[in-house]
Amino acid sequence: MMEKLRIADLNKIKIDDSFWNRYISLVKDVIIPYQWDVINDKVEGIEKSHSLMNFKIAAGREKGRFYGVVFQDTDVAKWLEAVAFSLASDPDQELMAQADEVIDIIGEAQQEDGYINTYFTIKEPGLRWTNLEEGHELYTAGHLMEAAVAYYKATGKRKFLDMICKFADLICEEFSEEKNGRGYPGHQEVEIGLIKLYEATGEERYIRQAKLFLDRRGVGENYFLWEEKQPKFKRIFPEFEGYLPLYSQSHKPVREQRTAEGHAVRAVYMYCAMADVAWKYQDKELLNVCEELWDNITKRRMYITGSIGSSGLLERFTTDYDLPNDSNYSETCASIGLALFGRRMAQITRDAKYVDVVERALYNTLLSGIAMDGKRFFYVNPLEVWPENCLPRTSKEHIKPVRQKWFGVACCPPNIARTLASLGEYIYFQDEGCLWLNLFISNKTEVALAGETVRVEVETRFPYDGKVRIHLESGNPIHGRLAVRIPEYAEGFTLYLDGAHIQEAVVEKGYAMLTLDQAEHLVELTFPLEPRIVHANPMVREDIGKVSILKGPVVYCAEETDNGGNLPAYYISGGAKLMEEYREDILGGTAVIRVEAKKAAGSWDGDQLYGEQGVSFEECMLTFVPYAYWGNRETGEMLVWIKELF
Amino acid sequence: MMEKLRIADLNKIKIDDSFWNRYISLVKDVIIPYQWDVINDKVEGIEKSHSLMNFKIAAGREKGRFYGVVFQDTDVAKWLEAVAFSLASDPDQELMAQADEVIDIIGEAQQEDGYINTYFTIKEPGLRWTNLEEGHELYTAGHLMEAAVAYYKATGKRKFLDMICKFADLICEEFSEEKNGRGYPGHQEVEIGLIKLYEATGEERYIRQAKLFLDRRGVGENYFLWEEKQPKFKRIFPEFEGYLPLYSQSHKPVREQRTAEGHAVRAVYMYCAMADVAWKYQDKELLNVCEELWDNITKRRMYITGSIGSSGLLERFTTDYDLPNDSNYSETCASIGLALFGRRMAQITRDAKYVDVVERALYNTLLSGIAMDGKRFFYVNPLEVWPENCLPRTSKEHIKPVRQKWFGVACCPPNIARTLASLGEYIYFQDEGCLWLNLFISNKTEVALAGETVRVEVETRFPYDGKVRIHLESGNPIHGRLAVRIPEYAEGFTLYLDGAHIQEAVVEKGYAMLTLDQAEHLVELTFPLEPRIVHANPMVREDIGKVSILKGPVVYCAEETDNGGNLPAYYISGGAKLMEEYREDILGGTAVIRVEAKKAAGSWDGDQLYGEQGVSFEECMLTFVPYAYWGNRETGEMLVWIKELF
Repeated sequence: MMEKLRIADLNKIKIDDSFWNRYISLVKDVIIPYQWDVINDKVEGIEKSHSLMNFKIAAGREKGRFYGVVFQDTDVAKWLEAVAFSLASDPDQELMAQADEVIDIIGEAQQEDGYINTYFTIKEPGLRWTNLEEGHELYTAGHLMEAAVAYYKATGKRKFLDMICKFADLICEEFSEEKNGRGYPGHQEVEIGLIKLYEATGEERYIRQAKLFLDRRGVGENYFLWEEKQPKFKRIFPEFEGYLPLYSQSHKPVREQRTAEGHAVRAVYMYCAMADVAWKYQDKELLNVCEELWDNITKRRMYITGSIGSSGLLERFTTDYDLPNDSNYSETCASIGLALFGRRMAQITRDAKYVDVVERALYNTLLSGIAMDGKRFFYVNPLEVWPENCLPRTSKEHIKPVRQKWFGVACCPPNIARTLASLGEYIYFQDEGCLWLNLFISNKTEVALAGETVRVEVETRFPYDGKVRIHLESGNPIHGRLAVRIPEYAEGFTLYLDGAHIQEAVVEKGYAMLTLDQAEHLVELTFPLEPRIVHANPMVREDIGKVSILKGPVVYCAEETDNGGNLPAYYISGGAKLMEEYREDILGGTAVIRVEAKKAAGSWDGDQLYGEQGVSFEECMLTFVPYAYWGNRETGEMLVWIKELF
Repeated sequence: MMEKLRIADLNKIKIDDSFWNRYISLVKDVIIPYQWDVINDKVEGIEKSHSLMNFKIAAGREKGRFYGVVFQDTDVAKWLEAVAFSLASDPDQELMAQADEVIDIIGEAQQEDGYINTYFTIKEPGLRWTNLEEGHELYTAGHLMEAAVAYYKATGKRKFLDMICKFADLICEEFSEEKNGRGYPGHQEVEIGLIKLYEATGEERYIRQAKLFLDRRGVGENYFLWEEKQPKFKRIFPEFEGYLPLYSQSHKPVREQRTAEGHAVRAVYMYCAMADVAWKYQDKELLNVCEELWDNITKRRMYITGSIGSSGLLERFTTDYDLPNDSNYSETCASIGLALFGRRMAQITRDAKYVDVVERALYNTLLSGIAMDGKRFFYVNPLEVWPENCLPRTSKEHIKPVRQKWFGVACCPPNIARTLASLGEYIYFQDEGCLWLNLFISNKTEVALAGETVRVEVETRFPYDGKVRIHLESGNPIHGRLAVRIPEYAEGFTLYLDGAHIQEAVVEKGYAMLTLDQAEHLVELTFPLEPRIVHANPMVREDIGKVSILKGPVVYCAEETDNGGNLPAYYISGGAKLMEEYREDILGGTAVIRVEAKKAAGSWDGDQLYGEQGVSFEECMLTFVPYAYWGNRETGEMLVWIKELF
């Protein structure tokens, strides 16, 4: 019997963490208001969103035409979801009133039969469900479902949830075995939404429909190639001509997939749903597939920053060990999806190895996606950037050396916002008698454990040091267990329970297991947390002869602003001493790592391109800053993997 | 007064060279017949050409519709040009009859007013000259002009030349200052054709028109952006939406251009014409621009193989020192264009530095473009290939690990054919009293020198060794000079004239100058020619910490078939001993270079992607083969720049 551990209730968790506070505060103070201005077309100098206006037009409140891409509605859905997560941890009447008003508009835009989608209501009313390949109808529906569930959980209000359940019912009918029988989304997401609806309402039909969508993928004649031949099919994206089913993971049945293929975001969203369906239907075979796909990603196709999707074209996976650092896509949303997938796998398997990767994605690529001021964003997260060479209409046109204000396809910024706003969901898991601590983030919460209400407080300066203090307190003795993650990079650890050193801690799948029996406990975990030099598997040809510097999950990088240009000319020794130093003056205060280096340069006759001249080295010092913070100062080069001098 | 040195007369030169014979023989034996089958749609398994059929339809001989791309006619023009060059050195009645028949068909397809273009005759008769940006009308005309001149020079027959002069006259009228006044080609080439027409006929109006086209480029409102707004404009290539004038070097006046920008083939074809116009109009300023553009390419933007165009997208130049090895385009045609440009610059300036680059392009990228069987071709010439990763619909989709049979856009194969067939034009330059020997290729020819007919014979095993024997013989004493190129890679040389060692040879701009005064002379040049290790300027970040191996102009590469896979894991020392060895059994007999190397591999736990494990090295030997020959055996990895172990 597989059980899926529960995640924490956001309404009950308060994060107050020296590392995360600066980002979490951005959500409510900056991102949500900014995003509100975006969906209301009040931000200058960015592509018009028009998304709320589309709903007003569909609602009959305004006159006008649909504007935007086919999934423009998701701008509104994602704003609502971020608002919901924010309201859960930090209630705000004014914000809730604003959200309620948006929900009213969506309600008025909903069709008689429950259908919601402004593109197919205003612009192409005759083409509903005729282009699942490109139409993003089910994708958009999925985001509405996620938003509705989050809003219900945060506020207890049912209106939005009920509206969306009606829409979900329509989808279940339309895509039942009896009616359509074969269709599935071109961009996975509705599966996650349906499963959340099931979890919120207990209605089995929703998760059954998610399972149907998964089961149909890649079976028989490809649905999208079939659809393209139907009379009502109308191409939306010309670049989809010559469609590769692999792009949307519909090249073979999901149970036969063993390698992560195609568009990275589509892939990991699908794997999330597969994991949940495997748990729900106790499908060991499907869970094994999820484990194999996870291994394929994390052992063959993932950057050290926890990012995925190594092809700039189509934002897709390529082949094992193909991890170019300066031309990858590594979309922020894909890392968020990887974290969501990993969290589900950890919930089901109780194995901390998944959390190690989730942590890597959150501490690096999630945060590199957003500027420290919360107003600029990266979709693409390269590990090496040479700004002069990120030219439009070249092979590197997708690489941006400067975060952008807002994008036409606005998936990443709201995805970052909702992830930051729901960070609490990653910190704990629990079942009836055990509480799992996954991430070392200072917080206070209250959980029900073995029948008792327990107040939990975590205090830590992680990732600056490896000391974590967990205080549990209840009215009565707690007859439960506490599982504390021992991260993969901890070389040994010490654990104290109520001041007593635990000599032989029991570690199960990466969690130290502690038995509780008092009304109050103090658990103190300490593990060494020093900067370290890391190599890549020599099959990763882009990283051969290079090293990167990490501290815990935090990947460091060198920026031109601290070190001068031509960063690929620097070498450090694999045994170099890494000197950590807190710098008040850099990036709002951060630890930097300094290391002795050599620069290949020197005596080259500047005008010769190729010649028999040798290479000379100059001694110098390099300064590394967290990768998450790159691109927050003047524009310049950035490099994660630095050459190794043997 | 600038003078432009003459090139050799192909009718009088016979190449018989141990290095080049195998390729030159392919032209007549394989490529021309194969190409004939292609333009007649008799080759299975390749995209239909239909190009001769288009002409037959336009001629009224056949019924049907135009098929192919807008420049499909150039398939036929390029076949004719290759045939012409072949007929010049190797007359063949049957082949000439075949060509005459094709010329008749073109003649019948020519319109009353002289216009020739099957696309705009059959398919879009109303749109003549309405889309210079994409229509390739002038480009196609240019190739017809080049073919007509070559055919006239080879056979003395005027029919084709006269037909094309009539077409050229139409172009001169249409694009006169009085009539159109502003237009110029979207893809440069007609300028070269017009200049050749001028050289063949002496008609000044042709080169004047070429100059007009150059002078108009990038002046005032961009012509193509203006054209797009005209009512008759009809988009041909959707990917040209959002056109960058820089792509076609029309972003600024040609005299203000200082860096090589945009599509590489367009660029170098234009520079060829600029050099000729500079000479013709004694325009020192324009020649200086050509020199600056040449320097920008050869000192900042050229691969060691003499290839150019470092962006896979749009086949274009990017920025100084941006020379990625595994994602570049480096089109074969661009290297041919670079050789054509360099030859013109050398003809005008008498500086051997241009020939050094021409030689590099010819010995490496020209030949890598064609398989040893003459039936398969590379458009794209990367310096590092990992076949498993050259996937369609990824950032590396343009990289082909296997030469292709024939391409839809069939520019490179016929361009290679005509270059091989006209190789003689690169060997010598001459003026009234001096003969320049540029390339060390065994041949016999006859030249008029200082009033005498001189039989010249060059014997050499270059590039296998650095010995060149030049025999000159005439009926009377020759009162002229011989200039023998001393290549950049020659570290010293010895020169004998009629058995006497010349102690202090006069070297002018890279040519050793010899005064002749007898009816017969024997000149013996010897320079050391050993394999050598070369570095790139450390501003080329892709090549920092790497070396490549050359012998003379010949770049070597490592292939998987000789060395095993994961080639980027190999290291050699910058001082490693390079052992040359002739191998009868490899690639039809070739010299290979063997060198001691180390492979970073060893003890890595195969399943871990990143970790603190160190790197261990294994001793091994690497075998390098000429880059020109890569991809002629089993499919596998290839690498030019190999890591250096310091």
